[in-house]
Amino acid sequence: MTDARREIGVGIVGGGYMGKAHAVAMSSVAAVFDTSLRPRLEMVAAGSSASAERYRDAFGFARYTGDWRVLVTDPKVEAIVIASPQETHRAIAEAAFALGKPVMCEKPLGKDVADSRAMVAAAQASGLPNMVGFNYIRTPASQFARKLIADGVIGDITWFRGEHTEDFFADPDELATWRCQGKSNGTMGDLAPHMINAALALIGPIQSLSAKIETVHRTRPGQDGPVTVDNDDQAQLMCRFDSGAMGQMHFSRVAMGRKMGYAYDIHGTKGAIRFDQEDQNAIWLYKLSDTPAERGFRKILTGPEHPDYAAFCQGPGHGTGYQDQIIIEAKDFLVAIETGKSIWPTFQDGLAVNQVVAAAFASDQARAWVDVASV
Amino acid sequence: MTDARREIGVGIVGGGYMGKAHAVAMSSVAAVFDTSLRPRLEMVAAGSSASAERYRDAFGFARYTGDWRVLVTDPKVEAIVIASPQETHRAIAEAAFALGKPVMCEKPLGKDVADSRAMVAAAQASGLPNMVGFNYIRTPASQFARKLIADGVIGDITWFRGEHTEDFFADPDELATWRCQGKSNGTMGDLAPHMINAALALIGPIQSLSAKIETVHRTRPGQDGPVTVDNDDQAQLMCRFDSGAMGQMHFSRVAMGRKMGYAYDIHGTKGAIRFDQEDQNAIWLYKLSDTPAERGFRKILTGPEHPDYAAFCQGPGHGTGYQDQIIIEAKDFLVAIETGKSIWPTFQDGLAVNQVVAAAFASDQARAWVDVASV
Amino acid sequence: MTDARREIGVGIVGGGYMGKAHAVAMSSVAAVFDTSLRPRLEMVAAGSSASAERYRDAFGFARYTGDWRVLVTDPKVEAIVIASPQETHRAIAEAAFALGKPVMCEKPLGKDVADSRAMVAAAQASGLPNMVGFNYIRTPASQFARKLIADGVIGDITWFRGEHTEDFFADPDELATWRCQGKSNGTMGDLAPHMINAALALIGPIQSLSAKIETVHRTRPGQDGPVTVDNDDQAQLMCRFDSGAMGQMHFSRVAMGRKMGYAYDIHGTKGAIRFDQEDQNAIWLYKLSDTPAERGFRKILTGPEHPDYAAFCQGPGHGTGYQDQIIIEAKDFLVAIETGKSIWPTFQDGLAVNQVVAAAFASDQARAWVDVASV
Amino acid sequence: MTDARREIGVGIVGGGYMGKAHAVAMSSVAAVFDTSLRPRLEMVAAGSSASAERYRDAFGFARYTGDWRVLVTDPKVEAIVIASPQETHRAIAEAAFALGKPVMCEKPLGKDVADSRAMVAAAQASGLPNMVGFNYIRTPASQFARKLIADGVIGDITWFRGEHTEDFFADPDELATWRCQGKSNGTMGDLAPHMINAALALIGPIQSLSAKIETVHRTRPGQDGPVTVDNDDQAQLMCRFDSGAMGQMHFSRVAMGRKMGYAYDIHGTKGAIRFDQEDQNAIWLYKLSDTPAERGFRKILTGPEHPDYAAFCQGPGHGTGYQDQIIIEAKDFLVAIETGKSIWPTFQDGLAVNQVVAAAFASDQARAWVDVASV
Ligand SMILES: NC(=O)C1=CN([C@@H]2O[C@H](COP(=O)(O)OP(=O)(O)OC[C@H]3O[C@@H](n4cnc5c(N)ncnc54)[C@H](O)[C@@H]3O)[C@@H](O)[C@H]2O)C=CC1
Ligand SMILES: NC(=O)C1=CN([C@@H]2O[C@H](COP(=O)(O)OP(=O)(O)OC[C@H]3O[C@@H](n4cnc5c(N)ncnc54)[C@H](O)[C@@H]3O)[C@@H](O)[C@H]2O)C=CC1
Ligand SMILES: NC(=O)C1=CN([C@@H]2O[C@H](COP(=O)(O)OP(=O)(O)OC[C@H]3O[C@@H](n4cnc5c(N)ncnc54)[C@H](O)[C@@H]3O)[C@@H](O)[C@H]2O)C=CC1
Ligand SMILES: NC(=O)C1=CN([C@@H]2O[C@H](COP(=O)(O)OP(=O)(O)OC[C@H]3O[C@@H](n4cnc5c(N)ncnc54)[C@H](O)[C@@H]3O)[C@@H](O)[C@H]2O)C=CC1
Repeated sequence: MTDARREIGVGIVGGGYMGKAHAVAMSSVAAVFDTSLRPRLEMVAAGSSASAERYRDAFGFARYTGDWRVLVTDPKVEAIVIASPQETHRAIAEAAFALGKPVMCEKPLGKDVADSRAMVAAAQASGLPNMVGFNYIRTPASQFARKLIADGVIGDITWFRGEHTEDFFADPDELATWRCQGKSNGTMGDLAPHMINAALALIGPIQSLSAKIETVHRTRPGQDGPVTVDNDDQAQLMCRFDSGAMGQMHFSRVAMGRKMGYAYDIHGTKGAIRFDQEDQNAIWLYKLSDTPAERGFRKILTGPEHPDYAAFCQGPGHGTGYQDQIIIEAKDFLVAIETGKSIWPTFQDGLAVNQVVAAAFASDQARAWVDVASV
Repeated sequence: MTDARREIGVGIVGGGYMGKAHAVAMSSVAAVFDTSLRPRLEMVAAGSSASAERYRDAFGFARYTGDWRVLVTDPKVEAIVIASPQETHRAIAEAAFALGKPVMCEKPLGKDVADSRAMVAAAQASGLPNMVGFNYIRTPASQFARKLIADGVIGDITWFRGEHTEDFFADPDELATWRCQGKSNGTMGDLAPHMINAALALIGPIQSLSAKIETVHRTRPGQDGPVTVDNDDQAQLMCRFDSGAMGQMHFSRVAMGRKMGYAYDIHGTKGAIRFDQEDQNAIWLYKLSDTPAERGFRKILTGPEHPDYAAFCQGPGHGTGYQDQIIIEAKDFLVAIETGKSIWPTFQDGLAVNQVVAAAFASDQARAWVDVASV
Repeated sequence: MTDARREIGVGIVGGGYMGKAHAVAMSSVAAVFDTSLRPRLEMVAAGSSASAERYRDAFGFARYTGDWRVLVTDPKVEAIVIASPQETHRAIAEAAFALGKPVMCEKPLGKDVADSRAMVAAAQASGLPNMVGFNYIRTPASQFARKLIADGVIGDITWFRGEHTEDFFADPDELATWRCQGKSNGTMGDLAPHMINAALALIGPIQSLSAKIETVHRTRPGQDGPVTVDNDDQAQLMCRFDSGAMGQMHFSRVAMGRKMGYAYDIHGTKGAIRFDQEDQNAIWLYKLSDTPAERGFRKILTGPEHPDYAAFCQGPGHGTGYQDQIIIEAKDFLVAIETGKSIWPTFQDGLAVNQVVAAAFASDQARAWVDVASV
Repeated sequence: MTDARREIGVGIVGGGYMGKAHAVAMSSVAAVFDTSLRPRLEMVAAGSSASAERYRDAFGFARYTGDWRVLVTDPKVEAIVIASPQETHRAIAEAAFALGKPVMCEKPLGKDVADSRAMVAAAQASGLPNMVGFNYIRTPASQFARKLIADGVIGDITWFRGEHTEDFFADPDELATWRCQGKSNGTMGDLAPHMINAALALIGPIQSLSAKIETVHRTRPGQDGPVTVDNDDQAQLMCRFDSGAMGQMHFSRVAMGRKMGYAYDIHGTKGAIRFDQEDQNAIWLYKLSDTPAERGFRKILTGPEHPDYAAFCQGPGHGTGYQDQIIIEAKDFLVAIETGKSIWPTFQDGLAVNQVVAAAFASDQARAWVDVASV
């Protein structure tokens, strides 16, 4: 290995859905992006020692622990990825920053605004790289959408519609899981943050909003009889961005037929953009500047011309997938560590998302418009 | 002509965009549907005698008049189609009913709730067939969607999203027209009624709503300098249906790239339906009852299996278009006259739409949820 | 009616699928296009007097006859539309031309090359307007495709793929009909002509080809036991156009799932075009001249900017349908009569299609490439 | 690491486009699929020692060599991946088998039939696991298509249309590269094998075919003036499968607008399947058994219900990409090594593809149908 490249010991807290995704990403990111920092899967932590051992073996970590504190304090662990439940994010992040270790934390940043505020404070006090795992905004397509807007290609934005819709609880007979309890595990707490982050990234800060949040199926069958669902199944909001643009959003885990309905339509004074994560390798662009008879939405297939695509494949239209988003995230985290400069979205951005979520709950309660800044 | 069939003299008020469409429809409806009543284009009325004469010649009417009262009172005019501006609808309809003549009126029914209420009263007092021109809901696809829902194919509805979006004013440099003035010519007054009618037809009455309505471009270039726009460019609302379903809508004439964005997504406990008028011959259906690995939205092309299609073409997927919607409308109007029974959507349904529009304006003013019944 | 406009008596031979379509078209074409010639449905002829009477009543003709000769010779019948089986086309056309009457004939022109040759000779000898009913090429979308190619927008054509696929006989249990007998009623005789005509219209003459034609289901259930199918279910060919472009085609009535699969992909040195009749109001255009990162197929919705659309509707994306294609055809026929100049596709073009069909059968027999000119 | 899991030293020949893809895949496959064999990137070989050293550093190999023989004979290299040009495949594979090492070889197997035959012989003599890198057929979608057909879901196949189309040479001004020379680097040699393999996998052996192959742009600009292109730009063929089904194929590197046009349409007596790699996470299924009014192509998004998806993500519709195909390939190769049983497609399957390519060239020469077995 040449001098420019050096190993870095990575510790991942959690080995479930996202813990695995980050482990896989850390295994391949160096080869994909030829990063200077070359991750070594040093240690994995989980809720129990037994499960952590299983993760070590399955994902190829050097060591494991049932106590995340062991991981965070281990000297060979130089960077931390938090992929455990939202309730645990704050304590882990605070401990890591205190020890001078950079942190990438899964979304939502904290389980609520208070946690997120504390995490931002800890991050800022430490001066260390920090990042939140909003992976969907990192597809080549959505990065390109950001760029198109930033470059003024579609003019001034007049309208934004976003949705994050899935259907894993659409069938009323679907068995209850832990996702049926706890505000931060409901649709607003768990799914909405992705699309709210997209809205903020693409259009800018949200000034005010009016929201409606509800539980469609108040009980679900469980192993031992009916279970009460105490969090929300679907929600929507109307909003006003600082820029003056109007926004509309929808979030759901009961949107029958939708699997990964992370989708947005953006209209501007010179063009428009449409995107749906269910076809993540295409972005649709409409340009007023085209000859009138030839105007239409262009289905642009992502390729080497688009952000972060070329490292995966030289051929356009060959496509990236879910796992590749996490690899891009890992690359950005490594670059942030290498350069000492956080890369968007930072903890600050994660907090901004939590604030919009909190404002939505406040609005739903009050049945009124609410200023996000007031929350 | 056999005994069952007989001629009926039709008078059309207006010879513009919709007046022409109705004239064409009345020319061909009998041949398409083999209706018992065979329309004869008896007379056309317009804002001026000169333009009315032009319409008579172009569309093939027997006679013309610059005064709609002449048309309404003419003894050879047995049925009236109102295709003139919203401000004129009420007086014409009232006069027609008073003379015992059935009326099909373009949307929106009246220019406001007061007019619509009066029109419903006149229609009911007369006991005559009455109908409102919500043509889009009459495509074979949207009629089929209604049937699927009514038959319980997608279960209990949990979510409805509808939009009616076009972009004829999306370019800020587009010249001002008469559409820039008058509440009933704005987006809420002019475009929203179509989709509100669809929502009511598909899901049922709306109980309450919260809306936001705005003018994006407050001035436009005109022939002699800038013109002030006094009505709305775009709007949105959140609503609750009587059935308990949640709804979300969007209306716009500045949705760059959208040409006929009359579209809806409907999620239920057993399935889902998606439709976009820009591809009006396809309706998308998702069924939970399909084998898990084979679940997906089916793109169903309309054909003879679907409502009102077979009369146009024996082949499925051959497609109907905008004009065919008006022909279906004409057929229903003739059948209503023949049987003496109004066919949905009646004036009563048109009033219901006006009430939702009024509630939306009230909500926008109040920045609050509003009960539709309270308006 | 002003002096420029005058009535013309139209006689239609056949009142089935296409006879009805032409009757409807002749009823509304004048109102749609404000044609100078205003058709009057003078007489309909059918296989029997009884069915002809039914058609008169249903479609609104003045008179009827069970003998097409009566129709052709009637002095009030000034123009003839042939919508009867392919075997009858020639005799009717010859009689009409002999009497100085212009003819629009359904596809295929004659039942075989010999008939078509005779029909072209008769048409040319008469000097009268003549036209073949290739309706699909008349959609605003396909007319626009022709224009794009003619204008050089996609450069030199290197590849053409076309298909005309339906599935009315895809189910092996579908009952046999008259379509199962007779070469000119098989897939090559009946469906292929539409797409071959498109190929000739879009790319130009075909020099040589190699084809494969087959009957997939050799027997079908009938009313009284199994019926032998003596014509073809599906076919394909490779071809070389005079221009040097390579072509590939596919024709089928057993293409399960395809309803109106009249579709083409055209690649050129500067761009590409894709079209599928199942979404007839969209045409897809790719331009090499777009900025690399913004290249993609544009989904252009037809509208007033495109050929023959505006007469149907002022709004783009509102859509035309199958019946509208026949109305466009009727308009062109009337204009041809008025001006005395045939409008494409003429009988000559119909013959060219028959020749390609004949060449395909010859190639299939010989299992070899065949020059179209040699047939 | 538990006993069941053990390391295996992997050597990759080539570090270009595919060498990198395989290196990345070998880095992450164990974590993704929890394979028993855990690859260690032992050595990379390249055309020169310098480039090999670069690859070692970039992709994280332990060692490198400028001579593939060193790699093949190294005792710590236990399994070989061949990702060098087609001319080199045979010698490397033969050497590997001779030393008892399993081989995964990039497509096409050999540069011609003779090479492929020799490679199959060497593989069979050795009894060692062998595999060819037809990655596209390994997407969850295409694997599922195979299963649907095998399970009889769409009945007896009557028609297959396949294409592999890209546009990297569609612009005539695109600079010449090494791909412009050598039969096995042309469209038939390089791109067609993927789709031919798909055809064989989905429908079974091809009995006979008729093909047309051509160079569209005979010269291209080069660094020092015009360069002569000696291989083919596009090709097509008609074929008959052993099963009796008819087939049609198209291959191109000049298909303007197509980026990864690996697409197929398959019609059967009970249903149909459509797929396009440009939207690789969706497979379209039509079933005759659906209620008539509800028939349509279902857009099925791949998910955990489909082959090899769940290891990448628990959520359906979240999507896999190009790199994931190579990871699936790597998993199969490791399983083959572990179990000692080759997994499809083997060298034998690769040879079958080469034979179809050879038959196509023979047919093009002869302008005639050719039996594949005769080549
Ligand atoms: N970016 C994305 O697309 C997604 C993000 N997430 C986020 O990722 C995080 C993890 O979610 P999943 O992976 O879905 O959950 P999971 O339930 O699949 O896995 C959670 C993991 O955390 C471990 N864990 C639990 N308590 C712990 C503790 N006190 N100390 C150490 N480890 C502990 C568990 O042992 C398990 O390995 C959450 O914050 C969630 O919101 C989840 C799914 C998708
Ligand atoms: N269903 C649909 O899709 C559409 C419905 N409409 C509705 O149709 C109606 C007419 O709209 P357009 O045709 O677009 O307008 P337009 O401006 O194209 O035509 C209006 C016609 O009304 C006539 N007119 C005006 N004042 C009159 C009077 N006092 N007496 C008699 N005739 C008079 C004019 O001469 C003209 O012929 C409106 O209510 C509008 O909302 C309009 C467009 C689409
Ligand atoms: N352009 C298009 O899209 C289509 C064109 N066609 C063509 O239209 C023509 C008619 O086909 P369809 O309408 O489908 O057939 P059809 O069977 O529905 O109707 C045929 C009509 O011809 C009449 N007829 C039969 N023999 C006659 C005779 N000797 N004299 C007078 N009338 C006679 C019958 O009474 C019947 O009214 C054919 O040439 C066919 O190829 C058919 C379908 C679609
Ligand atoms: N499955 C797929 O989708 C694709 C497969 N391929 C196949 O992969 C193989 C490699 O193609 P690419 O990666 O595109 O080529 P490339 O030109 O990007 O890389 C070729 C590599 O082979 C090395 N090499 C050349 N001669 C060598 C020798 N004598 N000994 C050792 N190494 C040598 C070069 O140094 C270079 O690293 C070919 O067989 C090609 O057909 C290529 C592209 C896509």
